[in-house]
Amino acid sequence: MLDVVHEDEAGPTLVGRVMRAVRELVATRSAMPGARLPSIRRMAETQGVSKSTVVEAYDRLAAEGVVVSRPGSGFFVAGRMPVLRLAEAGPKLDRVIDPFWVARQSLETPAEVLKPGWGCLPDDWLPQEALRRAFRAMGRDASANLTAYGSPLGLPALRAHIARSLNERGIEVEPQAVVLADSDSVALDLVCRLLLRPGDTVMVDDPCYFNFQALLRAQRVDVVGVPVTPAGPDIERFAALAAEHRPRLYLSNAALQNPTGATLSSAVAHRLLQIAEAHDLTIVEDDTFGEFEVHPTPRLAALDGLRRVIHVGSFSKTVSAAARVGFVAARPDWVEELLDLKLATGFGNGDANAQIVHRVLTDGAYRRSIERLRTRLAGAMTLTLQRLKPLGLTPWIEPRAGMFLWAELPEGLDSAVLARRALERGVVLAPGNVFSVSQTAGRFLRFNVSQCAAPRIFEVLGEVMRG
Amino acid sequence: MLDVVHEDEAGPTLVGRVMRAVRELVATRSAMPGARLPSIRRMAETQGVSKSTVVEAYDRLAAEGVVVSRPGSGFFVAGRMPVLRLAEAGPKLDRVIDPFWVARQSLETPAEVLKPGWGCLPDDWLPQEALRRAFRAMGRDASANLTAYGSPLGLPALRAHIARSLNERGIEVEPQAVVLADSDSVALDLVCRLLLRPGDTVMVDDPCYFNFQALLRAQRVDVVGVPVTPAGPDIERFAALAAEHRPRLYLSNAALQNPTGATLSSAVAHRLLQIAEAHDLTIVEDDTFGEFEVHPTPRLAALDGLRRVIHVGSFSKTVSAAARVGFVAARPDWVEELLDLKLATGFGNGDANAQIVHRVLTDGAYRRSIERLRTRLAGAMTLTLQRLKPLGLTPWIEPRAGMFLWAELPEGLDSAVLARRALERGVVLAPGNVFSVSQTAGRFLRFNVSQCAAPRIFEVLGEVMRG
Repeated sequence: MLDVVHEDEAGPTLVGRVMRAVRELVATRSAMPGARLPSIRRMAETQGVSKSTVVEAYDRLAAEGVVVSRPGSGFFVAGRMPVLRLAEAGPKLDRVIDPFWVARQSLETPAEVLKPGWGCLPDDWLPQEALRRAFRAMGRDASANLTAYGSPLGLPALRAHIARSLNERGIEVEPQAVVLADSDSVALDLVCRLLLRPGDTVMVDDPCYFNFQALLRAQRVDVVGVPVTPAGPDIERFAALAAEHRPRLYLSNAALQNPTGATLSSAVAHRLLQIAEAHDLTIVEDDTFGEFEVHPTPRLAALDGLRRVIHVGSFSKTVSAAARVGFVAARPDWVEELLDLKLATGFGNGDANAQIVHRVLTDGAYRRSIERLRTRLAGAMTLTLQRLKPLGLTPWIEPRAGMFLWAELPEGLDSAVLARRALERGVVLAPGNVFSVSQTAGRFLRFNVSQCAAPRIFEVLGEVMRG
Repeated sequence: MLDVVHEDEAGPTLVGRVMRAVRELVATRSAMPGARLPSIRRMAETQGVSKSTVVEAYDRLAAEGVVVSRPGSGFFVAGRMPVLRLAEAGPKLDRVIDPFWVARQSLETPAEVLKPGWGCLPDDWLPQEALRRAFRAMGRDASANLTAYGSPLGLPALRAHIARSLNERGIEVEPQAVVLADSDSVALDLVCRLLLRPGDTVMVDDPCYFNFQALLRAQRVDVVGVPVTPAGPDIERFAALAAEHRPRLYLSNAALQNPTGATLSSAVAHRLLQIAEAHDLTIVEDDTFGEFEVHPTPRLAALDGLRRVIHVGSFSKTVSAAARVGFVAARPDWVEELLDLKLATGFGNGDANAQIVHRVLTDGAYRRSIERLRTRLAGAMTLTLQRLKPLGLTPWIEPRAGMFLWAELPEGLDSAVLARRALERGVVLAPGNVFSVSQTAGRFLRFNVSQCAAPRIFEVLGEVMRG
């Protein structure tokens, strides 16, 4: 028997009281989505009502979708389980400029689609033959490790090679302060997990590599963007933001900033380190594109002696993104802690990939392939600039090297709109706001000049610009 | 000129006042290790003392080691930067039973050392020839992907293969609900990051795989251990702990529990799922050792239909720990979120390893190699049992399959002490408390029967047991 039933739930009915009690459990997250409600009997006891009143209340809440009934097991709070939803952790963005959607779109796109915005070289620009030799050698060489875990820091021969390369760039580091990781992204993630707590603030360039934003959302930290100039971050803004937000970390590219192609001047590099010192800021420089430079620019890790700079790199852009290896070079006391974290969260890194990459790097053909690559990129840069100008796109700068060109659309055009239209025509563009924390790059597009050979790209661009 | 200087800092001197002000900054973490102290001039102003008083105070604090002076740049709070120190995040343990030390020790040990406690098969028990063929084929096959990122979920052919294998075990899953990762550990880490918040509680078996503890410390969660019985977790304790601690997750092995070799009975599996349902608990079952089973035991993911169970697996134990691939099978709405997290934190998984593993799994020799492996493990299990008994070690159970044997020492012996002594004699043992959250397994040792062929292991064991 029902104690009292009114149609108006807001009234002081017993059914209404039970419904309010449940709503409160849900609103205060005392009962999370998926949690079982108190049993009918128990709820009747605690609310001092009859069981049929509770049944009526639960049924009404089920009709409203607040709870769900599972025959035989009871009533449960409706809704999704409380998992981490990165795409919802940041601002609600147009799909086309959501960093998660862009990453998935870029990776899922079939080969026949043109990808002038994509961040990799075409397969045939990479050292395919040296890679083939490396794989075959792995299969023939009885001393190759095909089965066992590698050493905790990673393949010693590759770490020694990396340390030598870093020394050549002025970064004094011993092989035992180089930690291998399964990729550049994994290396950055390890560093973030080492240094950041949820709620910390991190400074990035605006615009910056879109996955920096995704990576930082996964750390549950706040992100502040500093405007980029052709010589590096705007140093006055950098100082002001560092003072205002007290960021724990500044995450940037070491050379050939992604997406703008900007390179750090010596003066900006020096000031950056002074400001970092004053505000106790750690800097992570990601040198993934460093090999593309023709004339090396300053590395913060070299100036600072790896005191408050962590240097991250990889071979995904110049050797292989299929046999991936990244690395971290850091001060010895941090390396110890990184190593514990690396083992705890990944139990080492893939030793087969490290062996493959080491074989390619020490293959006589590699150095020549890098030189050929730089020449080829310079040619593609010139050609892409020539093709963009007649369309009315203005390069932000003419980058000194690398694959990226950051170009501005004429007034009144929105790169997200163009990207959506171009996608329908089989061309994946990279709209500016994908890269912008402040969402102020709506008139920009990033081009990868190595992916811009097909004239059709510029035909489609012209079409979508005309509307 | 100093305002006032007393030898006794406790007195009400001006120098003492400045020193106390700095100590307070440090104690309240208003100034973190590595942070610069206020300049001499500024401190003099705020404290209303002369600059020379501040200099004296800073110098005394430097002499005490509270601050450090860096000529030309000022005074800084001494001590280490606030990085995540996993080894210090848990209880202070004997080195030999600290999970971090054990992982590093195990991986760093040179090949000539005997490792009866180590968690892998000997290299020559793994499908070396099939791996060699796979690497050579990768180098010859023009359709192999040697350079590009793979698809976001991971190699479609391997995911389809995994989905078929899971279907054979009764786990109904489509290939698009299988996510590849760079290893089993990475797969578990992704799942933890998806489901856990710092401060959550996670239940594990006691004893359990030592790296589960390390992994969970990296998530900054609390860990509760449930005692293991030969049929799975002690179900009464499980229910009581679930009610008391409201854990978010229960992390366990799907089959052949590590380190005990226990296997879940159908009755325990069924009760586990009921309790999980009642307490809104998600279960992660790690099936890394599943292929070693001769007679398959229940998979929770099969019973539950991947509703609140996440199934994780890898090929590190049966194919290769050098070309590593792990995977997650989960409900479709969680897969979507896992994928964002995977891209944000690692930008995919290594496609070359996925191709290698897929080639080995589809190599005609693989199925036979697994069967041979099971026979070989059964023989090694019998032999190890025979060798341990005369030494006075008692097996906790005689496991139905797999490589692990959990054996108890006679009363009065401590496995951590024996492990230290054995290490001096070139034998790495696995002392019980490495695996025990409650540190109640001090009389146990884990043996990997596949690593126990050398008679010297048992000679050394006898020696160190005699003291």
